Amino acid sequence: MIDAEQRLIDHNIILPAPLKLPVGMVLPFPWINVRGDRAFISGHGPQETDGTPAGPFGAVGDNVSVEEGYASARKVGLSILGSLKRELGSLNRITGWCRVHGMINCKSGFSDTPAVLNGFTDLIIDVFGEEIGRHSRTAVGVAGLPINFPIEIEAEVIVSRA
Amino acid sequence: MIDAEQRLIDHNIILPAPLKLPVGMVLPFPWINVRGDRAFISGHGPQETDGTPAGPFGAVGDNVSVEEGYASARKVGLSILGSLKRELGSLNRITGWCRVHGMINCKSGFSDTPAVLNGFTDLIIDVFGEEIGRHSRTAVGVAGLPINFPIEIEAEVIVSRA
Amino acid sequence: MIDAEQRLIDHNIILPAPLKLPVGMVLPFPWINVRGDRAFISGHGPQETDGTPAGPFGAVGDNVSVEEGYASARKVGLSILGSLKRELGSLNRITGWCRVHGMINCKSGFSDTPAVLNGFTDLIIDVFGEEIGRHSRTAVGVAGLPINFPIEIEAEVIVSRA
Repeated sequence: MIDAEQRLIDHNIILPAPLKLPVGMVLPFPWINVRGDRAFISGHGPQETDGTPAGPFGAVGDNVSVEEGYASARKVGLSILGSLKRELGSLNRITGWCRVHGMINCKSGFSDTPAVLNGFTDLIIDVFGEEIGRHSRTAVGVAGLPINFPIEIEAEVIVSRA
Repeated sequence: MIDAEQRLIDHNIILPAPLKLPVGMVLPFPWINVRGDRAFISGHGPQETDGTPAGPFGAVGDNVSVEEGYASARKVGLSILGSLKRELGSLNRITGWCRVHGMINCKSGFSDTPAVLNGFTDLIIDVFGEEIGRHSRTAVGVAGLPINFPIEIEAEVIVSRA
Repeated sequence: MIDAEQRLIDHNIILPAPLKLPVGMVLPFPWINVRGDRAFISGHGPQETDGTPAGPFGAVGDNVSVEEGYASARKVGLSILGSLKRELGSLNRITGWCRVHGMINCKSGFSDTPAVLNGFTDLIIDVFGEEIGRHSRTAVGVAGLPINFPIEIEAEVIVSRA
């Protein structure tokens, strides 16, 4: 049985503060929406530890390299784990990852999306292990993302009751 | 406890007729697919009250303004509520919104997708209130949509048994 | 009650081998992720019977025709059914299709995405019938896909316990 909270400590993983929205941006929805034993995760982008949107911004394969995209995808994962911890109290309430939908900002014809999204999946498996952390996954190249993020991820997890 | 049907009356909200498909378009799937207590909402576009596809058509940020996109997103919401009411009999059977995936037709690099999708979220919160209406959300810019709609939305809600 | 396995035999439908990944591609996630009575289907592309990625590759409406896209979408369906059968043992464990998210690789402004995705839906209805096979559906044009596939599909189904 994985102790995800202990894993964060063991791996020196720091979860970021809530996203600091750009001036004028209004998001009338929660980052995490819990319904019964399901937690729906809104689309998250990469953040710095203090909650500011993290660059580089723009299209992967264009002005953002695949390696930078991988690093951004990991930061999206940290952003999501921060939101989950604030909502659930403890990451140990997560009993199973379900689906992950990764959207990579790119120009027409970019195809190296899985290598980018691996930055997210590698983090989730590190923290939760294969049994709880495994997820179905889709990596798709999209025309545009909020804040010109290079990547955004939405997902669903199963949670135990509080 | 919100009475969504009463809210429609109080707010003078008229739900549109079913989508009138363009000649030659075949859609071999239901607009709403109920499985147990879950209702899966197919991708909907904006409609006029009589069911005809509603313009403006094309890419937001290009020939469609963000303000027009917001209005279109509200029309998508009305279209979805119309489909839900026909399938469920009453919107009051909806006990919780889960996830909303908003796809905004745009040119490469458009980033103002959340402001567009707010036209949908604001409607849902108006009709259902925060407790039932709150949803996780993703707003992504895409390369193309059916009927050249400026926006399309898919979602999931929880419903009580009939 | 539909016998999906018998349907495969009756329709001479051959399911392909697992996808043979291009050299250097690492996908650290399962094709199917079962959680309780839900099976989450990772994004699949079209495959040949031996598991090699199936062309034509590229953007539908550009170098790939809508008719070729329809054929590719059917191949994606076969790919998914192959993964489901390997994971579940029998397709007859599937008691209901839920949602299907179809992503069509295209240039900006392509709108004939439903005609492409019908290649998938027609197959699913052929194999499972309307009651089990019906699904909510979204057909969206995207900027890029892994392996430069013309189409990729993710979905969710309900399964009976083994």
